[in-house]
Amino acid sequence: MKTEHQTADSISRPVRGAQAPPVTRDTPTQSTSFTQITLPPTAIVYCEGNFAKIDGKTANGLVRHSEAYRILSVIDSDHIGKNSGLVLDDAINHIPIFGNLGAAVAHETVIPNTFIYGMAPSTGRLSPADRGVVLDAIARGMNVVSGLHEYLSDDAEIANAASERNVTIRDIRKPKPSKDMRLFDGSVAGVDALRIAVLGTDCAIGKRTTATVLARALNAEGIKTVLVGTGQTGLMQGAKYGVAMDAVPPQFCCGELEAAIVAASTAEKPDIILIEGQGALSHPAFCTSAFILRGSKPDAVILQHAPKRAHRCDFPNMPMPTPTSEIALIEAFADTKVIGVTLNHEGMSEAEITDTIAAQSHKLGLPVTDALSRPEAYLLAIIFAAYPSLQQGRPVAAI
Amino acid sequence: MKTEHQTADSISRPVRGAQAPPVTRDTPTQSTSFTQITLPPTAIVYCEGNFAKIDGKTANGLVRHSEAYRILSVIDSDHIGKNSGLVLDDAINHIPIFGNLGAAVAHETVIPNTFIYGMAPSTGRLSPADRGVVLDAIARGMNVVSGLHEYLSDDAEIANAASERNVTIRDIRKPKPSKDMRLFDGSVAGVDALRIAVLGTDCAIGKRTTATVLARALNAEGIKTVLVGTGQTGLMQGAKYGVAMDAVPPQFCCGELEAAIVAASTAEKPDIILIEGQGALSHPAFCTSAFILRGSKPDAVILQHAPKRAHRCDFPNMPMPTPTSEIALIEAFADTKVIGVTLNHEGMSEAEITDTIAAQSHKLGLPVTDALSRPEAYLLAIIFAAYPSLQQGRPVAAI
Repeated sequence: MKTEHQTADSISRPVRGAQAPPVTRDTPTQSTSFTQITLPPTAIVYCEGNFAKIDGKTANGLVRHSEAYRILSVIDSDHIGKNSGLVLDDAINHIPIFGNLGAAVAHETVIPNTFIYGMAPSTGRLSPADRGVVLDAIARGMNVVSGLHEYLSDDAEIANAASERNVTIRDIRKPKPSKDMRLFDGSVAGVDALRIAVLGTDCAIGKRTTATVLARALNAEGIKTVLVGTGQTGLMQGAKYGVAMDAVPPQFCCGELEAAIVAASTAEKPDIILIEGQGALSHPAFCTSAFILRGSKPDAVILQHAPKRAHRCDFPNMPMPTPTSEIALIEAFADTKVIGVTLNHEGMSEAEITDTIAAQSHKLGLPVTDALSRPEAYLLAIIFAAYPSLQQGRPVAAI
Repeated sequence: MKTEHQTADSISRPVRGAQAPPVTRDTPTQSTSFTQITLPPTAIVYCEGNFAKIDGKTANGLVRHSEAYRILSVIDSDHIGKNSGLVLDDAINHIPIFGNLGAAVAHETVIPNTFIYGMAPSTGRLSPADRGVVLDAIARGMNVVSGLHEYLSDDAEIANAASERNVTIRDIRKPKPSKDMRLFDGSVAGVDALRIAVLGTDCAIGKRTTATVLARALNAEGIKTVLVGTGQTGLMQGAKYGVAMDAVPPQFCCGELEAAIVAASTAEKPDIILIEGQGALSHPAFCTSAFILRGSKPDAVILQHAPKRAHRCDFPNMPMPTPTSEIALIEAFADTKVIGVTLNHEGMSEAEITDTIAAQSHKLGLPVTDALSRPEAYLLAIIFAAYPSLQQGRPVAAI
């Protein structure tokens, strides 16, 4: 997992895990008497027409949480002048929204280090308008990060422009050569840490967000937890271990995920390894959940669901499954147990969230909560209910 | 599905389906008064140390059945001088085995057109010894076909040699660019033909062989059947429709398979579309079966099993599943029905085959047979038992 895919003028940097962004020598550092802290590079997230929507999920994720980059602003002319935290989660943050790249750059005293193409369209392709914005960012001297299937580093016009301007292009979805990949060999079963996969009933439903919040909460409790990323957004956010599975040939998906988990286990010796789910096991069009289950052999699963979602994201003709059917499918497909359900409250009022949590919990006989609108204690309670020995004496509020 | 991946000096040829071999202008043709028949190009299959073994499955398949190439001989010094049909299936054919490339070529009056690297090691990589043989084939003026993950056309030494010698390299596993791939959209459900997937309890267990024999038998009965290939071997054998799914990014696997099925349906208007399975749904290390089920939405499944196989191919620590558990998993994972079981008789005597067929049939309540050792009528009987209207009045022997 040491390789990183950039343009021909790639600079040799220490890379922390698969496709993780480098700590650049030119990022500012702050020194204190005892420690030197290197700050992540600054970035603007481009999300025109899609912020806070499903195809903007990369940008949404980065605004909520980013270890690898300091997010300065978001570009989306639909929300000029608003605060991104308010738009996304009704909670003010420090990331403003601008209508175009020029305005976003003008807001800073120093040109931002990186331009992140923060959209995840299901086609994975670059529109002509977006191409112009990418070239503009390059012309301004910004490095480019992209999660598209259409690799910007393989695009002659973009690659040449970057080369001439001496900036880098990082294609998160560009895999290493097949000959450098490994097959699954079962070693994941020997990992000491508890392995918990966060799966979902659909794509773009909050699996990564829930996993990120849960990891943070567990670590705050002193339960060492590592989140293994499996998608381009998680890796862009700076997940230290993981692989963008959508770009790995199927033959190697289980093996590459296994490798990331074993690496995380060996290096960090965590109590818990959380694995970010992808898609949904029942999804007619995708099978990455199957790979997550096979490659990680999780001891337990947390299932993310959106009660008010009528049909599958991007597939208006496909109705959503129920948590009941999804749980049955997961437990039939893999030797694991669903220990709790977390909700995506899209389209729900506060009262509806409360009522739905109660109803689902009663119906499923499992703890149910919402990682964003409910206290983290309830999220932790899912873990403690299944693994009481982790609780270390702390009382947990009854649900 | 129009692109084909070859070296830089690729010749524009009509391509029939994804990655199908071209009809070359320089292949000999035979004319009769009414028809002109173009013969497929000749080929030698290299399978050193692996013929009739599991990692030689590509060669094994080509020896049994090849539409796209006329197989002249096999290279494997373990079986010098033997007849390949006898070694493989106890049935004489016209394909001798030689110990090295020089001997194989000397046997022919004209240099064979193509050198097929006929091994499918799980690592997908070229050994140093094999590299030498490939370069030798190129030096002799043979085109090269390979199913390795390590693309020979990306290998500087091999690509340059081929370019200088004016021969082509065809990497079956090299996919078209992601940006040219399509997502699943559900159109497969609108296909008129009956869709039957041939799945298995393990890799390298005979799924493709059974599907090929079944397709041939159905067509001989006047039931128009198209076999959609999903692996490199099937495509090398000349399956007109299909995609090497192992090399397609997971996001596009279901969509690309759907496209192949819809294309076969539109062009051929068959009664039945058989889909070649890959791996096994229960396999801890692979998930391609999940893609086959999602991408083809089969009306029915035939399950290939090897009763005497103790552990999974290439995974000595993984025990084999039973047909019972595999059937339960398939029917839980997808809305389909397993209509019959076909056996791989490896390690079995003739009497054991008979007894096992009877015992399994009784236990599972399904028709059971063996595509290679039993008459094709029993294979057809699986289809007719589930779909009596296809039988068109022909009596079928009771099983």
